[in-house]
Amino acid sequence: MDAIDYARAHRQRFVDELCEFLRIPSVSAQPEHREDMERAAHWLCGKLVSAGFPSARVMPTPGHPVVLAEWLAAGPAAPTVLVYGHYDVQPPEPLDEWRTGPFEPTVVGQDVFARGAADDKGQAYVYVKAIEALAATGGTLPVNVKCLFEGEEEIGSQHLEPFVREHAAELASDVAAVSDTHILGKDVPCIVYALRGIACVELEVTGPDHDLHSGIYGGAVNNPLNGLCRIVARLHDEQGRVAIPGFYDRVRPLEPEERADLGRVPFDRAAWLGEAGVSADWGEAGYSIVERTTARPTLDLNGIWGGYTGVGAKTVLPSKAFAKLSMRLVADQDPAQIVELLRSYLAQITPPELSLELRSLHLGEGAVVARDSAALRAADRAYARAFGKAPVLVREGGSIPVVALIKKVLGIDTVLMGFGLPDDRLHSPNEKFHLPNFSRGIETVIHFMNHLSAAHEPA
Amino acid sequence: MDAIDYARAHRQRFVDELCEFLRIPSVSAQPEHREDMERAAHWLCGKLVSAGFPSARVMPTPGHPVVLAEWLAAGPAAPTVLVYGHYDVQPPEPLDEWRTGPFEPTVVGQDVFARGAADDKGQAYVYVKAIEALAATGGTLPVNVKCLFEGEEEIGSQHLEPFVREHAAELASDVAAVSDTHILGKDVPCIVYALRGIACVELEVTGPDHDLHSGIYGGAVNNPLNGLCRIVARLHDEQGRVAIPGFYDRVRPLEPEERADLGRVPFDRAAWLGEAGVSADWGEAGYSIVERTTARPTLDLNGIWGGYTGVGAKTVLPSKAFAKLSMRLVADQDPAQIVELLRSYLAQITPPELSLELRSLHLGEGAVVARDSAALRAADRAYARAFGKAPVLVREGGSIPVVALIKKVLGIDTVLMGFGLPDDRLHSPNEKFHLPNFSRGIETVIHFMNHLSAAHEPA
Repeated sequence: MDAIDYARAHRQRFVDELCEFLRIPSVSAQPEHREDMERAAHWLCGKLVSAGFPSARVMPTPGHPVVLAEWLAAGPAAPTVLVYGHYDVQPPEPLDEWRTGPFEPTVVGQDVFARGAADDKGQAYVYVKAIEALAATGGTLPVNVKCLFEGEEEIGSQHLEPFVREHAAELASDVAAVSDTHILGKDVPCIVYALRGIACVELEVTGPDHDLHSGIYGGAVNNPLNGLCRIVARLHDEQGRVAIPGFYDRVRPLEPEERADLGRVPFDRAAWLGEAGVSADWGEAGYSIVERTTARPTLDLNGIWGGYTGVGAKTVLPSKAFAKLSMRLVADQDPAQIVELLRSYLAQITPPELSLELRSLHLGEGAVVARDSAALRAADRAYARAFGKAPVLVREGGSIPVVALIKKVLGIDTVLMGFGLPDDRLHSPNEKFHLPNFSRGIETVIHFMNHLSAAHEPA
Repeated sequence: MDAIDYARAHRQRFVDELCEFLRIPSVSAQPEHREDMERAAHWLCGKLVSAGFPSARVMPTPGHPVVLAEWLAAGPAAPTVLVYGHYDVQPPEPLDEWRTGPFEPTVVGQDVFARGAADDKGQAYVYVKAIEALAATGGTLPVNVKCLFEGEEEIGSQHLEPFVREHAAELASDVAAVSDTHILGKDVPCIVYALRGIACVELEVTGPDHDLHSGIYGGAVNNPLNGLCRIVARLHDEQGRVAIPGFYDRVRPLEPEERADLGRVPFDRAAWLGEAGVSADWGEAGYSIVERTTARPTLDLNGIWGGYTGVGAKTVLPSKAFAKLSMRLVADQDPAQIVELLRSYLAQITPPELSLELRSLHLGEGAVVARDSAALRAADRAYARAFGKAPVLVREGGSIPVVALIKKVLGIDTVLMGFGLPDDRLHSPNEKFHLPNFSRGIETVIHFMNHLSAAHEPA
């Protein structure tokens, strides 16, 4: 029995284990889930030991712990792959929009529904099971493997960079593999070669120093709720472009060749509108939907609040208004510099009767990885075998700051092997993972490690 | 001992009773306080009986109950005064900004701090104690008195109009007296002769039909949070005027004489800025602060919410955004027509990728009462005796729709005898009532009833 046969024979057990993982509400953003975070880390560590890793441990950080494991079974001449994933998940709110409990994984048809199903527990667990299958059938691994699973990806990976710097020697590898992206369709695999950066900030607008009666003061006091709306309205121009002066100065223009590549990405507009649940698209004039969502920078409010939000009416003119906003950035935009440009612009457009405070929540750099390397070729062949179709090279709109971090600190490229689907509802109610992709993902990783080993030319 | 002496002798007990009233959390907007509403109504009814009312009862409505009482002690030849007040209060939120519990009345210096202290429990209770003092010392009352205390003023008085229509015969009176306004300063009494109307609505903006990941869809989907902000930003022009087409069409222009009167209202800009807690005023060009807050129509957001509002960042592009907004209206604006003008304008400025729903929360008509009448003259002399200073005639920015309702259904004018102060923080944390005004209020009402009786010419 080879590793592929093993994976197929144990498919149901693998799914059951994934459901066990999904049942742990490891919400990194919410302090009440601190113990669940520990529980998820220890559960994952136990599964690495069961898979055969001779060394696996839960390591503390000033925030949530990191799970670290290594298995140098293939010997010093073989390549070493650093597997990265995250066991933390987004908050499940709004809870009333879930058809089944976010932490009660439920299989409907070929999908498992749960918070974290695709982002990223399901995709991270693919590696654990691929390695188990390789080890159980080959007695060893075709390549050396190191695993780094963090618990703070959804809150900005604040403690990851110091951790990686401190353990740089232990983590030294030839290439990294990360599965935290999606393919283009059930039978349309892809490999992501570029990711956007991100800058998340919170705005606090203050008008009067206490809440006022709107019937007594309305009309003579600048209302911070209306004021915040006027400020936000000026963050885009009428053509959907971000209106912050200097925002586009360092954006690397799309070369005609790359635009042609992006134009070849299979894209079904009607299906996209259906997945997004909108009647029409919107955005920066002069760019396609694929370009706008992957290769152009954006700005979106993620939350807004202030004043009375309960039942009925309350005629208050509140003291404060708040918003959270995030910007997706492309090469060569620097997240810290973009935040400063935003800060200057806000200072300029905030009227004198209001004060505005900007708090930086988290910053992540984007990344573009080499489109031609042994690892990318191994991934390409692995997908072709597991999916029966060669993958497309694409850009991804989301941000996986760890890719830039791995490049910067460990000096290696990352192969982004996604197994999600575009309609997995990441960060939304009713997140799901398509179980055939879980199985094909395991097979892809098995092939990837075998091809990487075969392709390796000892130095 | 006359009624004034009696009121002075019993001052401390009156304050203790008021505190008992304030301890009942009668928040009409919040369903969990349903029983507290009943409790407050029955408490008040009991105090009317103790004051001497031969008939006082709690009457059901489809919402919160009405307290009704009558004492026709002065006989059919004497005038009848209808006293209106409300025993419900605004929600106390945000709770963490209260220095002492909103329902733990606390006397600091000469003020009592509690939700409802001034709006309207303290001011309504003035009448109960004035009547007790008159009855206890005179054996009867100088005028006939009917009391109507409702429990839904803060949520739009939805069931009051049908109630008043149904009991119109029982409520028939010569004049109404309402104390739900403020005077201009501790020693600057005033009588309000005009009130603004109100229209409160809730907006719900929908973009995608489910929450999306902003990294995957941002830049190609019209974000309803940003969209709501752009819509709200267009509700005023750059000069602070409401931008809804037709909004000002029926506004009765301020006559030069009335502007001159309003210009004579004692107004200390520095003190006003301090009370509002702002560094500068804002608003419609061409009008003074007094005019903008009392004689001109306004539009204010009262609340806004949508997306992720918890700790940290969540890169969501939400499906929905909400806002509550209220408009203060002046004669001859019709609240229902103004809501329709807003609805049309919103339909026009909502972009095609978003949908907007407008829900009307409540409407109230404004009122202007005759500046020259026996009742207004009686009130004028009563203030002069209790405060040692003649009152100023002013317009009020707030809305007391019951004044229009009483005019429409019962055909009588209302004398607005306020005893609050401008810095009472109505609807805000740390609402208070100035206790010397509670005592002077009781004396004013005693004088008012005596003067009204003396001035009355039997038909």
